[in-house]
Amino acid sequence: MTLELINTGSELMLGRVLNTHQQWLCRQLADLGYVVNRQVAVADTADDIERAVQEALGRADFIITTGGLGPTSDDITRDRIAALLGRKLHEDPAIVAHVESFFAKRNRPMPASTRVQAMVPDGALVLNNAHGTAPGLALHVSSNPFRPDGRPSWLVMLPGPPRELRPMFTNQVAPLLKEKLPLHANFVCRTLRTVGLGESFLEERIASPLKSLTDSGLELGYCAHSGAVDVRFVGHGSGAEANVTEAARIVYSLVGEYVFGEGDDEMAEVLVRQLTDQKKTLALAESCTGGFISNRITNVPGASAVLLAGLVTYSNAAKQSFLGVKAETLATHGAVSEAVAREMAEGCRARTGADFAIGVTGIAGPGGGAPEKPVGTLFIALAMAAGTKVINPVNRYDRETFKHLTCLQALELLRRVLAAGP
Amino acid sequence: MTLELINTGSELMLGRVLNTHQQWLCRQLADLGYVVNRQVAVADTADDIERAVQEALGRADFIITTGGLGPTSDDITRDRIAALLGRKLHEDPAIVAHVESFFAKRNRPMPASTRVQAMVPDGALVLNNAHGTAPGLALHVSSNPFRPDGRPSWLVMLPGPPRELRPMFTNQVAPLLKEKLPLHANFVCRTLRTVGLGESFLEERIASPLKSLTDSGLELGYCAHSGAVDVRFVGHGSGAEANVTEAARIVYSLVGEYVFGEGDDEMAEVLVRQLTDQKKTLALAESCTGGFISNRITNVPGASAVLLAGLVTYSNAAKQSFLGVKAETLATHGAVSEAVAREMAEGCRARTGADFAIGVTGIAGPGGGAPEKPVGTLFIALAMAAGTKVINPVNRYDRETFKHLTCLQALELLRRVLAAGP
Repeated sequence: MTLELINTGSELMLGRVLNTHQQWLCRQLADLGYVVNRQVAVADTADDIERAVQEALGRADFIITTGGLGPTSDDITRDRIAALLGRKLHEDPAIVAHVESFFAKRNRPMPASTRVQAMVPDGALVLNNAHGTAPGLALHVSSNPFRPDGRPSWLVMLPGPPRELRPMFTNQVAPLLKEKLPLHANFVCRTLRTVGLGESFLEERIASPLKSLTDSGLELGYCAHSGAVDVRFVGHGSGAEANVTEAARIVYSLVGEYVFGEGDDEMAEVLVRQLTDQKKTLALAESCTGGFISNRITNVPGASAVLLAGLVTYSNAAKQSFLGVKAETLATHGAVSEAVAREMAEGCRARTGADFAIGVTGIAGPGGGAPEKPVGTLFIALAMAAGTKVINPVNRYDRETFKHLTCLQALELLRRVLAAGP
Repeated sequence: MTLELINTGSELMLGRVLNTHQQWLCRQLADLGYVVNRQVAVADTADDIERAVQEALGRADFIITTGGLGPTSDDITRDRIAALLGRKLHEDPAIVAHVESFFAKRNRPMPASTRVQAMVPDGALVLNNAHGTAPGLALHVSSNPFRPDGRPSWLVMLPGPPRELRPMFTNQVAPLLKEKLPLHANFVCRTLRTVGLGESFLEERIASPLKSLTDSGLELGYCAHSGAVDVRFVGHGSGAEANVTEAARIVYSLVGEYVFGEGDDEMAEVLVRQLTDQKKTLALAESCTGGFISNRITNVPGASAVLLAGLVTYSNAAKQSFLGVKAETLATHGAVSEAVAREMAEGCRARTGADFAIGVTGIAGPGGGAPEKPVGTLFIALAMAAGTKVINPVNRYDRETFKHLTCLQALELLRRVLAAGP
């Protein structure tokens, strides 16, 4: 079975936006056992869209397009695909009523241009849009003129806004796919997420022990992010589940201490889960990370049960007034020092009453470096009942990577303490 | 001229990572006047890579591939492309020396597998990697067997890690492109970023007045993000600069109050610039946004000159102890109320001495809603010398969109005050 994804949008080709649809749709499909074979992005121009769709129809059983169904003049996907397939468009009164009611419910006038969204190619299934105006459309191309063997294809058009596309995929496209193109072979995908070991070193530790499994068809992949490396197993066929389970067992036995989670686990989620399970609380005192860690923790639903406060003490005055860092310590050691990190964490813990407090001070750059404390210098302190731990990694990266990596290191420090048990 | 981008990586097809290369490379190229015609992503499998490269060679003058040059077993791009083009691989001693010195400088042993990165297809230009081990490679395919007219193509392979790829593109690929495929036609792209008007309403206000320009060839595009809509003009040829300037003038005259920036401007950057220019300081008291706003502000280099502190007061106790919110106010009105937002902002301003303080309290969801205060309820207060303003938008979205939109609304509130002048 062949699946392809076509993302349309000149803003993609001009690099104005990130293509979040690719990741989200590929991920949803993979979780259902359908792996996308190819993803293509083209501009909102008639020829580019037509050519990409025609090529995909020549290869794929199921094609999803995103974007170009809205009301503005650059929304031309619906029209071009109808023209390519020789389907006439008709106005669907139920969609007109939906669009009218959408605006009425929000007490907003309905712009005349939005009515074009009710045009439907003959024979198309309409995918209702619960969160916007443009419906999705699904076409069964039964005698496919672009495929050498004339095999049929499904062509599904989804609207561009993520909060419209996502529920439409989950509630309408996924069931359609499973009904029309049921899977025959087993597919298992499992990802272990590690932090603290480089990609090559990880491979050196695990590749040979996994060799008999990979030789017999298990796919092994590595993906390095800043500070973290994912190890991914993909198994097909009858032994898939057992082979993937055995591969994961081997990796845990060899490098389990570096594995912080699986699949989509984010470090912040793992930590909120650990803290919740152990009924412990956390507070944060951030300088150079500027709220990055608080933001990550509070992205996790339920974080309010464990995070008491996050204090972004950028200025020295704020470090003194909100955390009780001593003027003398700042003067003697400088704001970026082990002593200040320690006082930040301990002051934060004392003033919030949290079980754990993390203090972070460093130089994110690009400015602010000095010969004895270059950009990337960093101190992370973890204050807890058992005392305070300080680590001193050096993160010489751009500002955003610096924040990301520092957050990962700070949370990993706490994760290992919590993993050791209460 | 035709440009194509090929991203390889099974993690892309499985939806494990976002394809940030697409946006970054397309953006860099567009800024140089080169618009990518097509972007394709395929898995790390030999056939998929070979087919995608072969097709691109059949169409494009300049092709960039990303990924698959590293040391692990799934890094096969270099080998497959060499095989496709019938080029032998040889070991380059300069690269071996670079890889050895890379590990030596970091006091880390060199894994044997990394040596494969020194293999170079015959005739390739080596693009040095200042930030990692795998070099990039540029091949001139002078008699191109895949192009009907035999026209030559350039094929450039870049390593996957962004901090290796980006400087390599800027310092080595961009100059190569400009030298080998100089531009003949003028190209101007300009984007105005607006907040507060829906896409259809924006189009209703500006499309007709821009009609004579678009009729004469100016491209007009819209791109809606959460809470913001970009208006993009692209002009080609001799009148491009004048037409784009005139189009922007028209948009500013009609909806200028909604325009917060241009091009890559982020709201946080605009605000840090305004505050810096007016020598004003800011402090933040965040509850439901959990540090999102602090993080955005501190992503801007130089933010330390204007941001005094950000207090993420998630618990009621933290609101009281760090901001001086009264227990009585919390008891009478609840934590999510206009009164608490006001006390948060005013308390934050008083305790930090900042010129402006923003207080945000709301229900991000998915839990925590109630019939009289459903998920999405929100109060944003801006405290300043002239008094305190409070707005009460309703952001009924997922947790991350809620934070993003709330941040935009909070900063827009301050932007308009600052835009009115000191």
